[in-house]
Amino acid sequence: MIKTIAFDADDTLWVNETYFRDAEDQFCNLLTEYISFEECQKRLFEMELRNLPLYGYGIKPFSLSLIECAIELTEGDVSTEIISEIIEIGKAMLNAPVNTLDGIENVLQQLSKKFKLVVATKGDLLDQERKLKKSGLASYFHHIEVMSDKQPENYTKLVNHLDIEPSSFLMIGNSLKSDVIPVLEIGAHAFHIPFHTTWAHETVDFEVKHELFKSFDSVEDILNDLM
Amino acid sequence: MIKTIAFDADDTLWVNETYFRDAEDQFCNLLTEYISFEECQKRLFEMELRNLPLYGYGIKPFSLSLIECAIELTEGDVSTEIISEIIEIGKAMLNAPVNTLDGIENVLQQLSKKFKLVVATKGDLLDQERKLKKSGLASYFHHIEVMSDKQPENYTKLVNHLDIEPSSFLMIGNSLKSDVIPVLEIGAHAFHIPFHTTWAHETVDFEVKHELFKSFDSVEDILNDLM
Repeated sequence: MIKTIAFDADDTLWVNETYFRDAEDQFCNLLTEYISFEECQKRLFEMELRNLPLYGYGIKPFSLSLIECAIELTEGDVSTEIISEIIEIGKAMLNAPVNTLDGIENVLQQLSKKFKLVVATKGDLLDQERKLKKSGLASYFHHIEVMSDKQPENYTKLVNHLDIEPSSFLMIGNSLKSDVIPVLEIGAHAFHIPFHTTWAHETVDFEVKHELFKSFDSVEDILNDLM
Repeated sequence: MIKTIAFDADDTLWVNETYFRDAEDQFCNLLTEYISFEECQKRLFEMELRNLPLYGYGIKPFSLSLIECAIELTEGDVSTEIISEIIEIGKAMLNAPVNTLDGIENVLQQLSKKFKLVVATKGDLLDQERKLKKSGLASYFHHIEVMSDKQPENYTKLVNHLDIEPSSFLMIGNSLKSDVIPVLEIGAHAFHIPFHTTWAHETVDFEVKHELFKSFDSVEDILNDLM
């Protein structure tokens, strides 16, 4: 019944959130004379949420929020040396190596024999294309779908674009909020594979039970279900 | 023979470059005590080109380049007030009204009766979706194709994705470099409609002559050719 499988990219195919956490730590360490580490993290999260509707997801929005946050929480006292360091933190993230998650290549190799595979991700096309290339996984996918958000209407657009019924579509990802709930809402299948670190904005505080939903501890376990 | 027509977005459907030029003027006006207007423009262009491979196209890369440029060309002396103003210049661009070009809606209305129309644009998906929505032109298009670049290989990917032959594909845009030359290289049709302002990075210093190429002074003139 399932014909097309879309994989989320960040923290489903490769490590991502870890880089954001490291960058956040570096950022807050630059500002310890102004603000405690915990308060810095809290203010940064608030800034990111405030800028999200205008900036969207990805490293460049994150970099701009870091700079704005540094100016705001030092009341303009931050040095241009620190702002330059922040710009470099963002550039280092864009240049970071891509570490694929354990077992993912084997899974894609198997699934690609039976299904059409695509990448469905929020964020920045250039950055996601770069990561897909560096990951060595590109050949398993038909193409990348970059979505400005992962609301039900974005998934409806996606299945229309793929020219399939929602019932033939399976989304696999690490975020209940982005990869599961909106997918179930449009009548498609969703598999959840948690990653050890989740951005606060992506967390939900309830459990999901649904006939089109399954959760797996390891990506390799999905092969027993699909093959 | 032509089945699918792709329109470039910025400066083909709506005014764009004008906003970048205005932002550049505002930026250089903030730094007159450090650097002449002409030198400022030159240094900014160099910074944008240097960051282009890593950042790609769009307003957020531009904002980050403005900040880095301000620090570099004042040797770190720029105030955080000015950096905050630069952040606001970028945000104002993201919130700017969308002014569609003369005659474009009539053209799209006519063409949509006979062809599948898509938007094919570089830059930022969220920003381009926002502009398409604000423009009131969204209903004429099947969907938006956001491309990380407009090289021949990106156009090959596009026609494969659209599931058509290059010979059935027509690209319409204001940039010879991005919308015409790479399109002719893959054996597809290209129409050029110049806009009064072109970013230096998009200019070419030669004329194009090719059997699959046409140039028009006004977008409405293409109707005589296609309908």
